Amino acid sequence: MKVDWIAVSCSDTSLQAWVFGSSGEILDELTESISSPAKATDIIDRVSPWLDKATTPHRVSIIACGNIDHIPNYTCVPCAPLSAPILDGGIKDDRATLQIISGISQASPADVLLGAQVQIAGFQAKFPKFDGVLLLPGPHSVWAHVSADEIVSFQSFMTGELMAIISQSSSLKSCLGDGFWDDRIFDDALSEALSRPERLAAKLLSLRADHLLGQAKGGSAKARLAGLLVGAELAAAKPYWLGQMVGVIGADALTEIYINALKSQGIAAQHADPTEMTKAGLALARVQQLS
Amino acid sequence: MKVDWIAVSCSDTSLQAWVFGSSGEILDELTESISSPAKATDIIDRVSPWLDKATTPHRVSIIACGNIDHIPNYTCVPCAPLSAPILDGGIKDDRATLQIISGISQASPADVLLGAQVQIAGFQAKFPKFDGVLLLPGPHSVWAHVSADEIVSFQSFMTGELMAIISQSSSLKSCLGDGFWDDRIFDDALSEALSRPERLAAKLLSLRADHLLGQAKGGSAKARLAGLLVGAELAAAKPYWLGQMVGVIGADALTEIYINALKSQGIAAQHADPTEMTKAGLALARVQQLS
Repeated sequence: MKVDWIAVSCSDTSLQAWVFGSSGEILDELTESISSPAKATDIIDRVSPWLDKATTPHRVSIIACGNIDHIPNYTCVPCAPLSAPILDGGIKDDRATLQIISGISQASPADVLLGAQVQIAGFQAKFPKFDGVLLLPGPHSVWAHVSADEIVSFQSFMTGELMAIISQSSSLKSCLGDGFWDDRIFDDALSEALSRPERLAAKLLSLRADHLLGQAKGGSAKARLAGLLVGAELAAAKPYWLGQMVGVIGADALTEIYINALKSQGIAAQHADPTEMTKAGLALARVQQLS
Repeated sequence: MKVDWIAVSCSDTSLQAWVFGSSGEILDELTESISSPAKATDIIDRVSPWLDKATTPHRVSIIACGNIDHIPNYTCVPCAPLSAPILDGGIKDDRATLQIISGISQASPADVLLGAQVQIAGFQAKFPKFDGVLLLPGPHSVWAHVSADEIVSFQSFMTGELMAIISQSSSLKSCLGDGFWDDRIFDDALSEALSRPERLAAKLLSLRADHLLGQAKGGSAKARLAGLLVGAELAAAKPYWLGQMVGVIGADALTEIYINALKSQGIAAQHADPTEMTKAGLALARVQQLS
């Protein structure tokens, strides 16, 4: 296999990798579940079958991004998403050199990006004239103000993860029903939380009261939980989206929830596929590495 | 054993019971851990050794309160904490009659009290002239406006439970250190959340950023987490405590956190022991039952 380089993207729960040939074509790809942040050695292990098949005369370059268990290096905003030095840490073995894309940090409010910046770089490569705000939904959603090829400021929210741990590990678990979804209940909860976001911890318990008093309709509590949490986030992130051009990078059910929430506030967001943006961003890092 | 009656209080995690003699003296007591809300039959099982030893000629009366797995009955506020009908559901066996104190509900905002009303009744019995607000810290904290022997309105918050599930089940777990506590960090986080409560989901992630950027001091993240969550609650509960006489019924570390938070806002709260208030409230229910 004539391998040019390998791209890797790690989240807390999965590792995706692509092996590129010399004309930029994808020769093979893999997605694997992981249970904790990947270490550099884990990454080498996962792509090892490709390294064994590689006929390249020199070490294969692996470029990785995301939540990787190593001592990270950060570039402070404002900066380009893939600021120099873009590659940090990393290890070598006989067959490969692994380099990890450095994170981006912000002093105030204190915040870090570990992988979102790569998707943002990919988005900028695909839509070079975009000037506005990018939203990346996920366990930790990210709002980033992007202008003149730089990330100007950003803010992460724990909303998706709160939704997951409240659904799976809290006393509300038994109140949440079986996934029935009611758009109107979502919209009402979103409006409530947008206008009184500080009441979140009380509003969450109203789910239990509705359940105990028999006022919850079907499994509608799930829509209400999502509306309350996303509404509180939209209230806090208002300086990001109000009157702005917004792009959303995401493809899952949570992304759809955010897009609907923005729509209810009069924001028609531009939508981009996260895997495509990751690949485009990692390819840019490869170009920087060679230049 | 000359048993007059038995009092039982159930939380999600423990069952406490006291057996009273005919002069109102406590003959014996027990505290047991439970893993899910107690059923009526569980309660009978736990106090069964007392029932076997009872020399009473008639069935022993058991009065129970708290989060008990049965079809509950609610009295709507405003109402006395132990409004008639105070006893609801319940079962009999050859040796005992179990009655469960009914809950209190509020239509808007939708909310229920399952056991707090008994502690509130006990507090009113001990401090009959109190007119103001009672705070009961816990996994679900309760703020109740109490006036002229009635609960006028109340509001529960999921703060304590959120603190627990974020500490134990979220990605912030590894950022929270080993229990070192810094009062100043707590106070700063409290102020931040009080002034911008809607930013909670973002502020929570600042704990991760501080950890990753090496800016967290010792295990201070625990104090910051508590300050952010309690601060957001104080912001939402402001109509309850601002300019009010406040009583706090609680005795654990979380109660101390709330008392310090109120002190930082100029509120010197009156403090009462929760077990004593529970026993006093259940004794009142016994008087009502006999009258």
